[in-house]
Amino acid sequence: MDKEAIIARILSNCSQKPKHREGIAFAPANIALCKYWGKRNTELNLPVTSSLSVSLGNLGAKTTIEIEDGYADRIFVNKEEIKADSIFAKNLSNFLNLFRTKAKISFRIKTTVNIPIGAGLASSACGFAAIVNALNQLYEWQLPSSSLSILARIGSGSAARSLWQGFVEWQAGIQEDGMDSFAMPLPQIWPSLRIGLLIVNTEQKAVSSREAMQRTVLTSPFYSAWPDKQALDLNRLKQALYLQSFVELGEISEANALAMHALMLTANPSILYSEAATIAAIHKIWHYRRLGLLLFFTQDAGPNLKLLFQEQDMDNVVKIFPNLQVVAPFENSSQNDTSFLSNVL
Amino acid sequence: MDKEAIIARILSNCSQKPKHREGIAFAPANIALCKYWGKRNTELNLPVTSSLSVSLGNLGAKTTIEIEDGYADRIFVNKEEIKADSIFAKNLSNFLNLFRTKAKISFRIKTTVNIPIGAGLASSACGFAAIVNALNQLYEWQLPSSSLSILARIGSGSAARSLWQGFVEWQAGIQEDGMDSFAMPLPQIWPSLRIGLLIVNTEQKAVSSREAMQRTVLTSPFYSAWPDKQALDLNRLKQALYLQSFVELGEISEANALAMHALMLTANPSILYSEAATIAAIHKIWHYRRLGLLLFFTQDAGPNLKLLFQEQDMDNVVKIFPNLQVVAPFENSSQNDTSFLSNVL
Repeated sequence: MDKEAIIARILSNCSQKPKHREGIAFAPANIALCKYWGKRNTELNLPVTSSLSVSLGNLGAKTTIEIEDGYADRIFVNKEEIKADSIFAKNLSNFLNLFRTKAKISFRIKTTVNIPIGAGLASSACGFAAIVNALNQLYEWQLPSSSLSILARIGSGSAARSLWQGFVEWQAGIQEDGMDSFAMPLPQIWPSLRIGLLIVNTEQKAVSSREAMQRTVLTSPFYSAWPDKQALDLNRLKQALYLQSFVELGEISEANALAMHALMLTANPSILYSEAATIAAIHKIWHYRRLGLLLFFTQDAGPNLKLLFQEQDMDNVVKIFPNLQVVAPFENSSQNDTSFLSNVL
Repeated sequence: MDKEAIIARILSNCSQKPKHREGIAFAPANIALCKYWGKRNTELNLPVTSSLSVSLGNLGAKTTIEIEDGYADRIFVNKEEIKADSIFAKNLSNFLNLFRTKAKISFRIKTTVNIPIGAGLASSACGFAAIVNALNQLYEWQLPSSSLSILARIGSGSAARSLWQGFVEWQAGIQEDGMDSFAMPLPQIWPSLRIGLLIVNTEQKAVSSREAMQRTVLTSPFYSAWPDKQALDLNRLKQALYLQSFVELGEISEANALAMHALMLTANPSILYSEAATIAAIHKIWHYRRLGLLLFFTQDAGPNLKLLFQEQDMDNVVKIFPNLQVVAPFENSSQNDTSFLSNVL
């Protein structure tokens, strides 16, 4: 089954014509605590395993999508126009092709991203989630969030999780058409949880996460052992969320990230996103943890680390890592509003 | 079956009394190109998989063993006496206990090691191999080299390979008593092969390789996939030696080392021997390799790298890594003398 057929089915009862001149939406970046690494279907971005993330509050992408009068899409990222023949613009226009009406309208996309792009900070996840949300407004599709999650997933796998704040689980699903592979928010909130972005290098990575993932699946001799580990980690992580056990959360998240990077090390050719400063920071984290500080990390497809700690350790952590950008993912949440879909900033 | 019984069997036809006042022997350090990582028997140091190494010429341990008049062993490393209650002295005396006659003689051990100790440079391998060779002289055991390899293995697994120069294969064996688990030299020589020791840190490592290995076997979720990878790599490596294909040799050795470190990353707690400078060096190696330089590395239980290259690239490699200590493992070998047992310097 191809993308076009899936999307036609999802949109079968929806408006085919834009109802407004523009749609505006924000989607947060999300950091996986239990990683998504490997696809069972590369066309539909169907994952081998389920994954679990936490969203980054007001760090993410804010996107405006308008009907463009010209014949071609125009794309602006952080106010700079992206060349139409760039890979980024082509990918995005190809994604938008899936949503054009027969009249072949063009779009003007304006995205503001307040995190570095292409540096393993989930910029494509929030980017695609924001576009899907903005399209939902523009066309007034009135789709359930699970369907929006599927649409976002088709743009970029982990975008499936960027439709919500808080903890989000993306269930792998088992269907071939991927209609059961979407994300849903989890009910737990954790007001004292802090995520520190330790930016080592904001340059675009040399190997895209899409390529790295595929290379790992195809060449790592250890990949066969990944799904079982992942299933175990996901269960333990959900239990840690339920029990609000921070040490468990930290240990599982860190081990899960290390295992993903271990897989990549054994890909052929090997992939090593860590830089010298990454490794220095890891040893530093472990040093202070041995001294009793409850500080853990996770790492995605880039050299940057995301530190996991609790509010009460904020001062100590910032003393150790003075340039840390700290996010409080549950700052604006309350017990009665845990799964808020953040459409507009 | 315990160590004592195995050794009694090996020495059953040998002299039980020292024939000389002293024995002197040298054994080279060895660098595994296909790693030994994991034991199926920790008492006898029986490995899960076979491994393949290359010895480091005149880098290694030179050991004199004498009958000591006192009641306790005295151990000198690089002219400094080691305290009898240190872990190192206890381990060594425990090993020597296996070879004392009923009269409970004591030994004076003097070892000169010309590589850093305990920093992943195979110091314990050459140390135990040199002691076994020196004991063989002292007692005039006249044992076949396969038996000496077994005795050295009981001291420290990879010591089994340090009895020879050149390429050495340690076959894992399948017997419970380990009598088929010994090393043998391979017939191939490779005069243009160079090994560059890139010393990042000569401090003793925080986690011993013995402990790291055991922790990996017991806790890594990927360990189950290691033996198959190892069997494949070993076959391919032997083919590369046979065909004298340097690119194959480099690629397999590097991938094998990375897989071993990937396993360690996924141990619990995680083990990361690499330091910032290690990772910087790896990226540097890969950078120059992309430019066409045939430069590869391997890494053992420490932060130091061992670079693999050919004589013709010596100038370029030394320009990139000016402090490299370069070894030509086959400098003194000839086609007719490929498996020389280097007893005395």
